[in-house]
Amino acid sequence: MTNSATNLRLKLPMACIILEVIIIILFGILVQYDDETDAKLWHKEIANGSSNYDNDFYYRYPSFQDVHVMIFIGFGFLMTFLQRYGFSSVGFNFLIAAFALQWATLMQGFVHGMHGGKIHIHVIMINADFCTGSVLISFGAVLGKTSPVQLLVMSVIEVTLFAVNEFIVLSVLGAKDAGGSMTIHTFGAYFGLMVARVLYRPNLDKSKHKNCSVYHSDLFAMIGTIYLWMFWPSFNSAVTAHGDDQHRTAMNTYYSLAACTLATYGLSAVVAHDGKLDMVHIQNAALAGGVAVGTAGEMMLTPFGSMIVGFLAGTVSVLGFKFLSPILEEKLKIQDTCGVHNLHGMPGVLGAIVGAVTAALATKDVYGDGMADVFPDIHSGEVEASFQGVRQAISLVVTLGIALLGGLITGFILKLPIYGAPPDTICFEDGIYWELPGEEGSHEELTTVRTPDEAEKLNA
Amino acid sequence: MTNSATNLRLKLPMACIILEVIIIILFGILVQYDDETDAKLWHKEIANGSSNYDNDFYYRYPSFQDVHVMIFIGFGFLMTFLQRYGFSSVGFNFLIAAFALQWATLMQGFVHGMHGGKIHIHVIMINADFCTGSVLISFGAVLGKTSPVQLLVMSVIEVTLFAVNEFIVLSVLGAKDAGGSMTIHTFGAYFGLMVARVLYRPNLDKSKHKNCSVYHSDLFAMIGTIYLWMFWPSFNSAVTAHGDDQHRTAMNTYYSLAACTLATYGLSAVVAHDGKLDMVHIQNAALAGGVAVGTAGEMMLTPFGSMIVGFLAGTVSVLGFKFLSPILEEKLKIQDTCGVHNLHGMPGVLGAIVGAVTAALATKDVYGDGMADVFPDIHSGEVEASFQGVRQAISLVVTLGIALLGGLITGFILKLPIYGAPPDTICFEDGIYWELPGEEGSHEELTTVRTPDEAEKLNA
Amino acid sequence: MTNSATNLRLKLPMACIILEVIIIILFGILVQYDDETDAKLWHKEIANGSSNYDNDFYYRYPSFQDVHVMIFIGFGFLMTFLQRYGFSSVGFNFLIAAFALQWATLMQGFVHGMHGGKIHIHVIMINADFCTGSVLISFGAVLGKTSPVQLLVMSVIEVTLFAVNEFIVLSVLGAKDAGGSMTIHTFGAYFGLMVARVLYRPNLDKSKHKNCSVYHSDLFAMIGTIYLWMFWPSFNSAVTAHGDDQHRTAMNTYYSLAACTLATYGLSAVVAHDGKLDMVHIQNAALAGGVAVGTAGEMMLTPFGSMIVGFLAGTVSVLGFKFLSPILEEKLKIQDTCGVHNLHGMPGVLGAIVGAVTAALATKDVYGDGMADVFPDIHSGEVEASFQGVRQAISLVVTLGIALLGGLITGFILKLPIYGAPPDTICFEDGIYWELPGEEGSHEELTTVRTPDEAEKLNA
Repeated sequence: MTNSATNLRLKLPMACIILEVIIIILFGILVQYDDETDAKLWHKEIANGSSNYDNDFYYRYPSFQDVHVMIFIGFGFLMTFLQRYGFSSVGFNFLIAAFALQWATLMQGFVHGMHGGKIHIHVIMINADFCTGSVLISFGAVLGKTSPVQLLVMSVIEVTLFAVNEFIVLSVLGAKDAGGSMTIHTFGAYFGLMVARVLYRPNLDKSKHKNCSVYHSDLFAMIGTIYLWMFWPSFNSAVTAHGDDQHRTAMNTYYSLAACTLATYGLSAVVAHDGKLDMVHIQNAALAGGVAVGTAGEMMLTPFGSMIVGFLAGTVSVLGFKFLSPILEEKLKIQDTCGVHNLHGMPGVLGAIVGAVTAALATKDVYGDGMADVFPDIHSGEVEASFQGVRQAISLVVTLGIALLGGLITGFILKLPIYGAPPDTICFEDGIYWELPGEEGSHEELTTVRTPDEAEKLNA
Repeated sequence: MTNSATNLRLKLPMACIILEVIIIILFGILVQYDDETDAKLWHKEIANGSSNYDNDFYYRYPSFQDVHVMIFIGFGFLMTFLQRYGFSSVGFNFLIAAFALQWATLMQGFVHGMHGGKIHIHVIMINADFCTGSVLISFGAVLGKTSPVQLLVMSVIEVTLFAVNEFIVLSVLGAKDAGGSMTIHTFGAYFGLMVARVLYRPNLDKSKHKNCSVYHSDLFAMIGTIYLWMFWPSFNSAVTAHGDDQHRTAMNTYYSLAACTLATYGLSAVVAHDGKLDMVHIQNAALAGGVAVGTAGEMMLTPFGSMIVGFLAGTVSVLGFKFLSPILEEKLKIQDTCGVHNLHGMPGVLGAIVGAVTAALATKDVYGDGMADVFPDIHSGEVEASFQGVRQAISLVVTLGIALLGGLITGFILKLPIYGAPPDTICFEDGIYWELPGEEGSHEELTTVRTPDEAEKLNA
Repeated sequence: MTNSATNLRLKLPMACIILEVIIIILFGILVQYDDETDAKLWHKEIANGSSNYDNDFYYRYPSFQDVHVMIFIGFGFLMTFLQRYGFSSVGFNFLIAAFALQWATLMQGFVHGMHGGKIHIHVIMINADFCTGSVLISFGAVLGKTSPVQLLVMSVIEVTLFAVNEFIVLSVLGAKDAGGSMTIHTFGAYFGLMVARVLYRPNLDKSKHKNCSVYHSDLFAMIGTIYLWMFWPSFNSAVTAHGDDQHRTAMNTYYSLAACTLATYGLSAVVAHDGKLDMVHIQNAALAGGVAVGTAGEMMLTPFGSMIVGFLAGTVSVLGFKFLSPILEEKLKIQDTCGVHNLHGMPGVLGAIVGAVTAALATKDVYGDGMADVFPDIHSGEVEASFQGVRQAISLVVTLGIALLGGLITGFILKLPIYGAPPDTICFEDGIYWELPGEEGSHEELTTVRTPDEAEKLNA
């Protein structure tokens, strides 16, 4: 007997295959190699005096791969903390990331990357991974309560709005946001929170016993945490200008994260039960330092400044988990499974503010000719530093607006009863969408009680 | 009392130490640094106007490390899906990879890399990792049914034949195969399948209850899958020419994999029980897109072409798991533990065909001077593009021939009853070759039922 | 009721926050960007003819990230082998590494890196990760028996002494030790062993049943092992000179590790019970080859020499686990939880000796102008090669002296009963410092026995 409501035999294949066919057709029409990936064009560059080491590939590919690891391993495993949702955490993360990076290539291309009517393929596709990161942040808010079809629909809309917001912030408003405190983290978090609000389930307590971790699921989640932590310097520096910019951004992020981690451990022991450490804090809040220097990391924030920001971010994040999350759930009816408000929301806003202030304080004396890379409009005299700060602040407001409005609309679209969403009683449960091993019949335990016969052979 | 048949106290040390001593002696006689690793020679280059950034190390080392991760983490953990074979999956993978990369350095050197009677050491040793990958593919076909001594013997032969085949395909026939659709995947898969055929165990159903996964073993396997997926662009681009070639190959692979993943999820829900997703498909078929652009990835395949290939590869692979694997086992008596025919066999052949067609369509108009990197013989006018396509096709046939014949002979050698192979009743079981924790006596469960005394202290 | 002895509600926050505030203040006073990370200064370099690809970032950042992975994933997960200490292994590793790398930036800066009264920030901060590695080695010796506050105090002292020793060895004595056989491994191991000696617990057998692994904890540990193994070439080559030096060091380490692995498997089967393999050996001894070429890896050791060293290191390490560790514990009262003496101690000393011999044999004929990079003092004629060998040998003795004396003093400081150390009965147990999932009340098993109702829904 089939439970038609959550059975995805038709819905998921249709969603996957229709979307993929549309993408492939659009790629066929619109996407082509650029100067650095095309055999003929690059060799023309070579003939004109370029060397192979000028190819941007060598400047960005290591960071690209680090970001890739953050997207697929980092986000994927971070969400495996739930005891019975590991397949879905890693597996749906994999699915929507693989989809979103293709869709993002097209949407980001449409909105701000057309070259003679064509979208160019290049290692700077890191930007598609960034956009994907934003979707995965939103995924964290609705984790365990959505079907993969809902997630794909959410990705279609969110990627599109991400590209629009990114265009407004970076191109129209002229703000800087290399590591995405605003465009990635703030956007993804508040979009996801609003979706979670609309999808509020008053009877979610029926699945409450599954909305928690077990010992090994927390260890798997630490794989995600540590990879995110280690590679965040690559994330923030991946698309900054060559040279001092990439170098400085990586170092700022590195020290911000280190300071954040100490703050997290300290605060966690303060607020948790009996002075013990809480894995939820360690897994999440220790990363807030990377989020919070996402905008200012490429600026002359100084290591000192970076560490203060990281320390504050860790503090805010732990306190958010302890005091704010229960309020969000009870008063605002936002069931934020992974606490993305604490890891991406507040630290993202903090990062945007830090970015605005740092930009407003930029002086030619400090940046020298490097101003051209970090703040080209200040360098060219088009704007004053203080006005750049204003641009940054406006960008935060715009981002929040588009995220909240977009999330609201998306939430209502996802509420339609056609996507096979799980009932309240079996949220946070892989079994609804995955064939589980040993599910039908003789499940054998990891530590088998062997027959005497077998044990004898083994010990023989 | 000792079970002399499977006890490896003498056999494994002898195999390891004799092989290693032979290798060390051969290295002493034959292997030396090259221009880029030798202190004196590189500084001569510097004196002649080279810069340190010309050293190939900086172009290839990041890819080299990514490939390394695929070999040791990717293949190793992908095979941990079996419930009681995790130690062997990761551990034997580690052993035979560490052996094979040394042996491959020698064999590939002998066959097509001697320089004045010497073999040169260089970061292009990525090729030794590639050869190792081929052995690990074959390992997948016989996983759970072979002793480590058998695996070492298989590695000795397979590495040797790999080098011979690679020489014929790349040097004699002049085919291109940078990512190894033919030389690595097709070769490794059909070699391993033929070995599995010869080692057919009619009574393997006695271990059937162990030839499946449990919840956490599937999560460990996903670590392998995700790393293979993420770093496949590095795999395919690791040894292509500098500049546009590496850049384009990485991008083609990236999009092929993304399209393949969507196809895999869609098809899995179609064919699996009740519209649920099957972890076996996700773990394996989602990778077929990387295999299938192994030959054409460096060519001007276009992102559009790459995605079509990836989509087809994922489709073929899922259908193979569902419909072909049972036939292989029942009719052809090939017990392919990991389904390497679906992940490496068919997608490898597909990749070879795509490569042949793409090569046949190469024009000066599309490749420009870049033709010299991708198809030097077409560039020099030595052959027509159509003939290059024929070379590619012949290479596939030669690869299949050497793989099948080599696997046949190797299978019979491995059938000799001297290697401590496991009996049918205890296949897929670590305990036969590993000291298991808690095996003798008071095994304590992960979630201990604590004594009240202890619990009190903990909660105090 | 609160157990005040091990409750860290005040102690851990005070330690974390006071230390972090001190660090931030010192960073504010002392730390600044250097020529390659400062916007203004780097653009002056550019104006003077430098190119962005001259920025050291591009030469070292990929290695930096590999080393980062070794520190946080490698060391962290290697120690998760204990059945109930995974949170602490990964979590305390994370805490003390995040602290130590900041403290090391300051201490290494004070001792041998001041530039006009300032400490410079640069990707060569890899050195801070190296120093951190030394602390984590010591952590391995006291794993399971120390509180996080003790570990932070240990880190404060050890990092300081590390910087002093490093200064004496590299700057005063003029020894070479790029991969840290002496400064990192020997120092960290003997420092930690001496701490463990002073903290000897005669009644540790009360926790004996927890001082061992279970099946999945050993698999998690293999993640650590494999990452350490794969990225060791990056570790040893991360701070060597550009060009042939980085390239050669990576290759030497690669082959040393491969040979070591074969020796480890061979020896493990010889010495373990019934010819089976012992996970402890595989997880640890297979890495000794990386330790043992830490000094000589950048020299013209030849691949042949590297493999002999690796083979010896693996052999020594396995034999140490089998025969020496019990003696250390029973006779010398050193309870070395992870066996760091076997992985870092003896192989480190071996590496120092190999380095001394290789240095003593250096000739202009072999090194050419490359001598300036590897042995600048021999190149300049300041010393003979044989004297360089003597310097290396003296450095080993100095390192051992400072490590043992430092460990002794540190041990006594850590013995003060103020840090919340665990009692003998609950060592090797996460629950004392971590809120464990499901600890209070309804812990649900991973493989839940579902209610018939629930099972029906799932299988519907």
